[in-house]
Amino acid sequence: MNINGKLKELRKLMEDEGIDIYIEPSADPHQSEYLAEHYKSRAFITGFTGSAGTALVTKEEAILWTDGRYFIQAENQIRDNEFKLYKMNTPGYPSLHEWLEENARYGGIIGLNGKIFSQGAVEQIEEKLSEKKVKIHHEDDLIGRIWEDRPELPIRDAFILEEEYSGKTTAEKLKEVRLEMEKKKATHFVLGSLDDIAWLYNIRGWDVENNPVVISYAMVTEEFAILFVDDRKIPETVKSALYDSGVVLAKYESIEEHLKRLSKDSTVLLQKDRINTSLFHAIPKSCRIIDSENITTTMKGIKNSVEIKNQEEAYLKDCAALTGFFHWLHKEIEDRDITEVEASEKLMKFRMEQQGFLQPSFGTIAAYGPNAAMMHYAPAEDSCAVLQKKGLFLVDSGGQYYNGTTDITRTVALGELTDPEKRDFTLVLKGHINLLASRFLHGTSGHVLDVLARQPLWKEGIDYKSGTGHGVGYLLNVHEGPHRIATAPNNVAMEPGMVVTVEPGVYREGMHGIRTENVAVVKEDMETESGRFLGFQVLSYCYIDRDCLIPEMLSDEEKLWLDQYHMNVYEKLKDRLNDEVGEWLKEKTRPIDEK
Amino acid sequence: MNINGKLKELRKLMEDEGIDIYIEPSADPHQSEYLAEHYKSRAFITGFTGSAGTALVTKEEAILWTDGRYFIQAENQIRDNEFKLYKMNTPGYPSLHEWLEENARYGGIIGLNGKIFSQGAVEQIEEKLSEKKVKIHHEDDLIGRIWEDRPELPIRDAFILEEEYSGKTTAEKLKEVRLEMEKKKATHFVLGSLDDIAWLYNIRGWDVENNPVVISYAMVTEEFAILFVDDRKIPETVKSALYDSGVVLAKYESIEEHLKRLSKDSTVLLQKDRINTSLFHAIPKSCRIIDSENITTTMKGIKNSVEIKNQEEAYLKDCAALTGFFHWLHKEIEDRDITEVEASEKLMKFRMEQQGFLQPSFGTIAAYGPNAAMMHYAPAEDSCAVLQKKGLFLVDSGGQYYNGTTDITRTVALGELTDPEKRDFTLVLKGHINLLASRFLHGTSGHVLDVLARQPLWKEGIDYKSGTGHGVGYLLNVHEGPHRIATAPNNVAMEPGMVVTVEPGVYREGMHGIRTENVAVVKEDMETESGRFLGFQVLSYCYIDRDCLIPEMLSDEEKLWLDQYHMNVYEKLKDRLNDEVGEWLKEKTRPIDEK
Repeated sequence: MNINGKLKELRKLMEDEGIDIYIEPSADPHQSEYLAEHYKSRAFITGFTGSAGTALVTKEEAILWTDGRYFIQAENQIRDNEFKLYKMNTPGYPSLHEWLEENARYGGIIGLNGKIFSQGAVEQIEEKLSEKKVKIHHEDDLIGRIWEDRPELPIRDAFILEEEYSGKTTAEKLKEVRLEMEKKKATHFVLGSLDDIAWLYNIRGWDVENNPVVISYAMVTEEFAILFVDDRKIPETVKSALYDSGVVLAKYESIEEHLKRLSKDSTVLLQKDRINTSLFHAIPKSCRIIDSENITTTMKGIKNSVEIKNQEEAYLKDCAALTGFFHWLHKEIEDRDITEVEASEKLMKFRMEQQGFLQPSFGTIAAYGPNAAMMHYAPAEDSCAVLQKKGLFLVDSGGQYYNGTTDITRTVALGELTDPEKRDFTLVLKGHINLLASRFLHGTSGHVLDVLARQPLWKEGIDYKSGTGHGVGYLLNVHEGPHRIATAPNNVAMEPGMVVTVEPGVYREGMHGIRTENVAVVKEDMETESGRFLGFQVLSYCYIDRDCLIPEMLSDEEKLWLDQYHMNVYEKLKDRLNDEVGEWLKEKTRPIDEK
Repeated sequence: MNINGKLKELRKLMEDEGIDIYIEPSADPHQSEYLAEHYKSRAFITGFTGSAGTALVTKEEAILWTDGRYFIQAENQIRDNEFKLYKMNTPGYPSLHEWLEENARYGGIIGLNGKIFSQGAVEQIEEKLSEKKVKIHHEDDLIGRIWEDRPELPIRDAFILEEEYSGKTTAEKLKEVRLEMEKKKATHFVLGSLDDIAWLYNIRGWDVENNPVVISYAMVTEEFAILFVDDRKIPETVKSALYDSGVVLAKYESIEEHLKRLSKDSTVLLQKDRINTSLFHAIPKSCRIIDSENITTTMKGIKNSVEIKNQEEAYLKDCAALTGFFHWLHKEIEDRDITEVEASEKLMKFRMEQQGFLQPSFGTIAAYGPNAAMMHYAPAEDSCAVLQKKGLFLVDSGGQYYNGTTDITRTVALGELTDPEKRDFTLVLKGHINLLASRFLHGTSGHVLDVLARQPLWKEGIDYKSGTGHGVGYLLNVHEGPHRIATAPNNVAMEPGMVVTVEPGVYREGMHGIRTENVAVVKEDMETESGRFLGFQVLSYCYIDRDCLIPEMLSDEEKLWLDQYHMNVYEKLKDRLNDEVGEWLKEKTRPIDEK
């Protein structure tokens, strides 16, 4: 059935149910960033396969919202169907909320699948439309009803992350969670976000590409800790381990029934933005709700010493792989053509040689020349660029290891560079160093630190339209909170043990894109009469291409930082590389003022 | 009557009214920072005369909260009475809210003077005590009832700030205010804050020391603009000017009656933190309230081109006075002893020689040696220090001129300095330059920029426990919003025309205090494909004492900034100084690498 056919069926169902407007976001019941195939219902109804977008259907209209990363792809994919593209954050296009305010009729009915819409998102819509007395019908998955060959939910064995990797048992984590619950006077803590659950119960799985999570819900009370999960995914050994940690299993779908039966004086701790509307509505109205960030999110964000030690190892493995790849690339390109896709696949092979590598932590961005100006470019087999012996090549990639999750970007010269390319590269490095070498009083947020990475670029009138850094999970999601280094306001203080990327960049449309990304862990630095000062300790050790730099633009302090960093790169990696690559790296990491 | 006698009378009134706890803050009906004598009721009841503090009285207890600036003074002043000092932000002392949560009895009654408590502050207390079902009795000024010789409210002629100074007529300002009201669908805009009213109606007066405001309220509707004021303060010429601008006068106290008579479908725009509880309660319950920052605050915070031009002139006058003073000081101290108070008075004389000077904009801080480590030190005749021909002398002062309000701090060497003194001075200058020389994308808040001033100090483990910068009024309060450069979070974007201080410092108890403060205006800097970039344009031009610096600690960029700044200082001031002072300044402003 083509898209217009699906729309016809959907509209028939809408009419039957008395629904004026139906909204389908890119989402699953757990508010995940990456979706299992089963949940790609927005792609099913629109034909647009990008990772982010929202569809809205009325009797007359069919609208798709997506962001700047996907304008071109979306236009191509919906060209032959009824959907119109509404460009997000673009003048002339109303946002979803603005459209609803303008077009929803007084007393109208909006339909949506409450299983994938978060309670927070529903409340936002309700607030925007409060004067219109609109009703939200969230009990029906209309797209599901017309999706005949819908993929099943994945069923692959979950596994336990042993204490040598997690550094903390589930029993210990539950103790901390219960202590927080007690402080907040909560009787129940309900979790829908998959990485929080995986962290709490020390389980990992294969349900979502790149994110080693297990589709499930969790609920913790003083007495019980429950994992709601399809038990076909839970081998006996995992079951035993969970039982031993005080975790009981229940059917995935049964969480709604559990919530419905809560005693009326319960106090339920949850995060409305991370729990779906269906679950929320299952909770008896008489219960008290405490809406606050999942308490596991901060616990998970602050890595323990075992996790940090493991991450150090993961990054050395990963950087050794990356170094081997760049050595191969520089040699190979002398003799023959290489495409972005081939380079990308070769890098994967280098990673796979590393012990404990499980899968990539996100889709590799291997972008040559102007392609790198597209911040989320993914090369495609049939359309990708061929690398030449000149210009810049940006590679942003990462892996999932038992030792942790990695994420690193390097931009390297494949031959001659132009002055603007070198100038931009050097400015990015100045921002990179300015942030990584900073020292900050305890209590400082990533929002404030963000300006340190941007200042050298801002002084030249250059900005990058992305955050500077995000948290990174431990064998979990490559993007995690609660902290973030970004211009968007947040007041989360950086705490020792928080792992974060530092990735300033310059993106010039049609010309080039540059990003230098390392991952660092926040550490105690010094204590004085002024208070506790924190700093960053780098985890990623991969050379920064000196061929891209204009050394005269660096201050003495910056040169010193780079030379010391490069000395460490060589020392830490040399025993992980063969002689040829080791010699090559030695050259690449020599002092910057050495010819 | 002594304090304990007053407490006895207060407790008798409390008993008569059935009040358990009576709270008296340092406040007036307009939430002013500086108070007229009439409103120093907290000082009357406690004996403590510092500018900030809150008194709380029960049948058994009498507590005074104040902050670190006043611990010593407060202890001395309440030594012989029943009050106990509770140190704010000090471990072991509960805050007012914590004390109330702990000690207020279920169903108890808290008394406070609703005329001086803001509605916002009352709601905070109500929220904290919501579970205790406490009642707030705000209709009575019990302290006023026992204060027999209470000073009258001041009556001195107000004056109009002519358009050559204000740059915008009241009629124009009212038009802008009404436009904003329309956007917010407000029928009434009620103003209690005195600087907002003075700005809106282009009036100034003498009701509060250092702050040239007129005690009054204002209300704006589509049709009317009312000034509620004691009309004995309004000369006929001012009356006419106000009438011509569309402003009508009403009795100061009559605002409550006006509010009570609002039609029931009115929508009232006000700021709960800047309006007193009595006024708030006068508004009929059926009216809709929009609680948002006073719309005049942002308008006032962004100076127009006439104001900026005038401010430039005010700062040159002020810096000429300061230069004359420092020249005098350096000469005079060769021959004889000078006290902090004498220096302070001499500086006042230099300012008074400047045309258009009206009064100081705050109490001068003239602090020698260790005294400067107390951030808000004010020298007293009988206890102040005698300057010696060594060490550092910090002078923080400012004036009210028709051309605007000034605020400037310089720390100078009176002779030999120690290495730590020089080192700290140089670090402060590095922070000062790092912020003033920054360039930032439009949308950036002062909260984010704050880190630029602190980074050079933080790198050495030094922090200062104050904000980095505050807005400055135009012939108005020396502290104004909405913007602020501080570690405390705020998301107010810096806008072109905002005037702000830049004042990092180092404070070492028992040793020395250093602060270098300039005032700057935010300006458009450059526009690129990345967006609009802003920067700072300095208004203050007074030499920075090279004798305090360790030049080798400055980067080439910092030296360049300082040399250019000093070149400007000399060029802009030389024609305002006599030959001797001019020659002296030339020496003081020579390039930093020149011996």
